[in-house]
Amino acid sequence: MKNNGITYPEGFVASGLHSGIKESKKNDISLIFSNAPCVAAGTFTTNQFKSFSLLWSLKNIDNLIKAVLVNSGNANTCNGQESRKKTSLLAEELAKLLNLKKEEVLLASTGTIGKVFPYSTVLGALPELISNLDKGNHLEAAKGILTTDLVVKESHIDTGIQGRKKEVVLGGMAKGSGMINPSMATMLAFITTDAVIDKRALQRALNEAVEDSFNMITVDNDTSTNDMVVCLANGLSRNPTIHQDSKDYERFKESLKSICRELALKIVTDGEGATKLIEVKVKGAWRRDDARRISKKIAGSNLFKSAVYGSLPNWGRILSSVGSVHARVDILKTEVSICGILVYNGNPVKYDEKDLAKRMEGDKIEVCVDVKKGEFEATGWGCDLTEEYVRINKE
Amino acid sequence: MKNNGITYPEGFVASGLHSGIKESKKNDISLIFSNAPCVAAGTFTTNQFKSFSLLWSLKNIDNLIKAVLVNSGNANTCNGQESRKKTSLLAEELAKLLNLKKEEVLLASTGTIGKVFPYSTVLGALPELISNLDKGNHLEAAKGILTTDLVVKESHIDTGIQGRKKEVVLGGMAKGSGMINPSMATMLAFITTDAVIDKRALQRALNEAVEDSFNMITVDNDTSTNDMVVCLANGLSRNPTIHQDSKDYERFKESLKSICRELALKIVTDGEGATKLIEVKVKGAWRRDDARRISKKIAGSNLFKSAVYGSLPNWGRILSSVGSVHARVDILKTEVSICGILVYNGNPVKYDEKDLAKRMEGDKIEVCVDVKKGEFEATGWGCDLTEEYVRINKE
Repeated sequence: MKNNGITYPEGFVASGLHSGIKESKKNDISLIFSNAPCVAAGTFTTNQFKSFSLLWSLKNIDNLIKAVLVNSGNANTCNGQESRKKTSLLAEELAKLLNLKKEEVLLASTGTIGKVFPYSTVLGALPELISNLDKGNHLEAAKGILTTDLVVKESHIDTGIQGRKKEVVLGGMAKGSGMINPSMATMLAFITTDAVIDKRALQRALNEAVEDSFNMITVDNDTSTNDMVVCLANGLSRNPTIHQDSKDYERFKESLKSICRELALKIVTDGEGATKLIEVKVKGAWRRDDARRISKKIAGSNLFKSAVYGSLPNWGRILSSVGSVHARVDILKTEVSICGILVYNGNPVKYDEKDLAKRMEGDKIEVCVDVKKGEFEATGWGCDLTEEYVRINKE
Repeated sequence: MKNNGITYPEGFVASGLHSGIKESKKNDISLIFSNAPCVAAGTFTTNQFKSFSLLWSLKNIDNLIKAVLVNSGNANTCNGQESRKKTSLLAEELAKLLNLKKEEVLLASTGTIGKVFPYSTVLGALPELISNLDKGNHLEAAKGILTTDLVVKESHIDTGIQGRKKEVVLGGMAKGSGMINPSMATMLAFITTDAVIDKRALQRALNEAVEDSFNMITVDNDTSTNDMVVCLANGLSRNPTIHQDSKDYERFKESLKSICRELALKIVTDGEGATKLIEVKVKGAWRRDDARRISKKIAGSNLFKSAVYGSLPNWGRILSSVGSVHARVDILKTEVSICGILVYNGNPVKYDEKDLAKRMEGDKIEVCVDVKKGEFEATGWGCDLTEEYVRINKE
């Protein structure tokens, strides 16, 4: 079987298992390990209350990295200074068992905020996690980072960039579900590559990729305390080093963007309670940021999300969102189409209501808004708002 | 029976009836009339797609006003240039029947966006509306401006300011329900007073009152195209003119603020699908705007709103909201209490879980957050997010 997750690139192994953090029997801890030291790049939540695990990674992201430990079921956030100390101890213990320095280890957590960190439970699971490290265990690792997610989120891609040893490839995994409204940051996602690439080029490529993928999705407008994306590059494909001005840089960046976008779409499709994907393309914007904000406003509108759930072509709610954003808009010429059918062009347009109603019953709703002010565009994604979202979050 | 709505002040009469805009038999049009010309003040939505009715009022708010016509069931927004012309014609016809100039008339609308304005239906209702004008019909008028609202929203207050003829009083009515996230504007509310007050003082008092009331509530983070608050002062109490530096100005402003707050709370308590009121007080902020933004972020969080619905004391979701706002926060000292019970003080606090669970079953949930950075505070209001909200908006 071909590896299709984080162990797809050369030299990466992984494992995942149930340690006891979660009451259910589901996996709740995962380990990623690279045989060679990795250049690392990361984007982290802008939330001021940051997880202690995330703060550890933020401090160490500039080092060469060999291992990433991720737990689910406990956010390790706002859970007291004792948990902060335990976080540092955990990195130390993991490093000892792997014969590494603690600075070569990254940590990430996701789950409930404010619960004491289950230090001894995690510690007890480390030996088995390490002995299970294997190329074949990417799926177990991808399971270990999930919370209310219903499906595992993995992705991989070949870049077409040739190394002395092999073609450069990338692999990735992510978790999502609730509290999804990344803001110059994102939820948990881990991307691996065997590329040789310098750190600044990797960070820049990651920033751009995240900006067009994870930062363009929203499930509920709530920005998590634990969002992070980390990309590790171990260099084992032996390609000529990629710098920001290398000819291969664009190709690498496009592959990275493609994998980020695939994982982001998997997250939003599996949003809490979601039954439909909403894709909002905004064209004709005066500047790119206008297009981005309008797109996210529509994709995040509770009213429009509820309408999509009910297959209602309520374009008034789209225009209301467009108009409420601080952005340049030609209100006399703005055009709106839903699922390919023009419904507004400055005046209401007569359209085949039966046809549109039928199209809106599909599981992907495409909205296109042209604000007629310039040349910039952006695409964002959201999901519908259902009774199930409320049910999940009241329990 | 004492008048307790917009006809409470001297010289105001009103009426409301079912004209046929709504398919149901509910009232859908209302008229407010003052026997004496009124100084007027207004705050209007910041949404760029403004209702044609609202644009008419925006243009005429600086005139002396004698009548306000309000319809529900049709937003008169994004419904084509033909509807714009009809809006102007409507003001003209109403003025003719009332022996006024069209510049003395204000218009407001609320309802579905994008439907052709039902000009002839409204026109046909004017004679009966006018002949029904009466002090006793404030309740019919308050019914005529409702959409998915379940309850009528009226309020009145005595200011304690003595005029040569009588004490200055205020009355008001409002509608709310969905698309409620006023932003330097608000939903529909009409406030009447028999005060003598100069226009600049009235506008300034209204701005301040709206800022602390309508602008501090949120039902679903969606800002309407039709939001407006209008205050009319006809001077019939014959008090000494209130200027910004009069000794009565503060008293007048506090009364206005009190009536705005009461109407705002009625709106949020009757939010679509709502079963509980959420009150969020933020203290210790570096500046007032920080407190305001944190308060509204918490009150508007889908995750926290769902938790409140399920009576869950999920304070992690409160902190996550606090941290996601661009505001100064002492993350090591921030305190959170829910329904009077301290749950977090920089570390999780042990509290009586049964006691809190019981308190959260009440219909008003008080959240207090002290961010320990300064002296400013603000209070905002929201409602819980329920399956019923989704049901209302998918249909």
